[in-house]
Amino acid sequence: MADEVTVGIDIGGTNTALGLVDREGRCVVLAEVPTLAEQDARSLVTRLCDKVEELHRGLAEPPKIAGIGIGAPDANYYTGTVEHPPNLNWPGVTPLAALFRERFDVPVVVTNDANAAALGEMLFGAGRGIRDFIVITLGTGLGSGLVANGELIYGADGFAGELGHTVVDPSGRQCACGKRGCLETYASATGICRTVFELLCDSTDDSELRDVGFEDLTAERVSEAALRGDKVALAAFESTGRVLGMKLADAVAHTSPAAIILVGGLAKAGDLIFVPTKRWMEEFLFHAFKGKVKLLRSGMPTGGDPAVLGAAALVWAELAKVRLS
Amino acid sequence: MADEVTVGIDIGGTNTALGLVDREGRCVVLAEVPTLAEQDARSLVTRLCDKVEELHRGLAEPPKIAGIGIGAPDANYYTGTVEHPPNLNWPGVTPLAALFRERFDVPVVVTNDANAAALGEMLFGAGRGIRDFIVITLGTGLGSGLVANGELIYGADGFAGELGHTVVDPSGRQCACGKRGCLETYASATGICRTVFELLCDSTDDSELRDVGFEDLTAERVSEAALRGDKVALAAFESTGRVLGMKLADAVAHTSPAAIILVGGLAKAGDLIFVPTKRWMEEFLFHAFKGKVKLLRSGMPTGGDPAVLGAAALVWAELAKVRLS
Repeated sequence: MADEVTVGIDIGGTNTALGLVDREGRCVVLAEVPTLAEQDARSLVTRLCDKVEELHRGLAEPPKIAGIGIGAPDANYYTGTVEHPPNLNWPGVTPLAALFRERFDVPVVVTNDANAAALGEMLFGAGRGIRDFIVITLGTGLGSGLVANGELIYGADGFAGELGHTVVDPSGRQCACGKRGCLETYASATGICRTVFELLCDSTDDSELRDVGFEDLTAERVSEAALRGDKVALAAFESTGRVLGMKLADAVAHTSPAAIILVGGLAKAGDLIFVPTKRWMEEFLFHAFKGKVKLLRSGMPTGGDPAVLGAAALVWAELAKVRLS
Repeated sequence: MADEVTVGIDIGGTNTALGLVDREGRCVVLAEVPTLAEQDARSLVTRLCDKVEELHRGLAEPPKIAGIGIGAPDANYYTGTVEHPPNLNWPGVTPLAALFRERFDVPVVVTNDANAAALGEMLFGAGRGIRDFIVITLGTGLGSGLVANGELIYGADGFAGELGHTVVDPSGRQCACGKRGCLETYASATGICRTVFELLCDSTDDSELRDVGFEDLTAERVSEAALRGDKVALAAFESTGRVLGMKLADAVAHTSPAAIILVGGLAKAGDLIFVPTKRWMEEFLFHAFKGKVKLLRSGMPTGGDPAVLGAAALVWAELAKVRLS
């Protein structure tokens, strides 16, 4: 049993996962509580702190809790706050780190889920030993975490890594953020579903997806159809890979990573999304970068929730900085 | 007189500037030699080393030379080499740092001119005290240097910061790099001239630029016409600002800089380029970044060549790292 663990917490719109994680990325214990998004932040924090104490007490030789790391939507690393989250009933700016520190006198670090995923891959996954890489989360939206010179980039205001809102087409698809043509409206689990309907109206090809309603279609359903050889589903992956590959080539021109790691729901489609994305990225890469950038799958240990491991990694990374300085 | 100086060298296609620069960014002495691009690298290095010795001997109390910094096209920071430069007759890979070290037993650091410009602004210019910023050089092409967490990003292969080759339009203008629609084909001194001719053919507006041949048009000529109220010239600045602003918004979504510094020939047009670029950047920024990113002019001290100061800053920055560790 480890003598020290950190708490990793991943706050989602429906459920919040938490776990105690040792320095090697082993999840000692894992649990889940309902987020109850309609309630205020303090209520969730109280339930989470109770759960952490319960899990900790339940261990045979309770290790020291070295800190708490939290992945949350719209979280600001510098201030420890969550700002105007659209999917939680937490109005204004919530001092999330401070609320946890009322119960636990340990370092509390917050950031968004994509940055937590990047730190998870850096400490425990496919990013180990790589000084420059990017993690792309392909879920409902598209999140990203950039690592350069061996450090996560938080940027001037703690919100760096919003590649989901770079522009593919300024007169393109409407995005939840209020802009048009953002990358995540094309390259995400929901983006590929929008692409399916675009292709269904453009082409006359037979497709099993012609029977599915707009609200019922999922990325998994598109994957299943593609694996059965459905032409429209295959074309949707090709089109998604083209847009994603083009914008990944742009990202490479910024920070020149050695690798890009694709994670999240749509990445589970495997070769269906990796093969066209890699081909189109190479097509659009500046010659100095061609053939140099690996496109990798998550390397997070199985048996733990990767988002919880990422949140726990956040505080391990912070402790390493403090202990070095 | 400073007790220590670094040598800054800026290798251009026609001329190479060099100078001795103290820790505060004062250029103690400055000179220029013809590059003679048709000759080999060793010939240029020999003439540059002779010139450095001559300048150094000419000083009343010769300071210690602490290192040599070189801004050169297609220069690789990690290897100290220049690789396949299209504008110099240096075939293959030239070990530029090693050639200098045959004459001077001091640290020799090389990088491309945009990275050198970024380090110059960081140590001596508008980037002082800013941990996260981007420098964009608007010359014949568009170069860029990204600073995050207080450090220049070289990336996995030493070539990070190629924003000039991010994609504006995959079926757009032909770029010297072999791709289509690269940012620098629109937003650069040559890009704005291409835009003028596009506008001259699209519109029927009177314009003094209708009398200028394609090869004779310069960004300065477009600026002069715009200052006289020429409609086509003004529209060209507006169009350039739109494309540049859109792609700067993308860059902000990557590293969330506090400021973007525009330098180089086209930046000398001042408000003509800064005003539309800032307006369009704000238009395209993700809401979390709106109103937060400054668009700044170069803050390099006058009286020295900014490219020489940047190259000298390169080695001052390197020495600071070594002395800290």
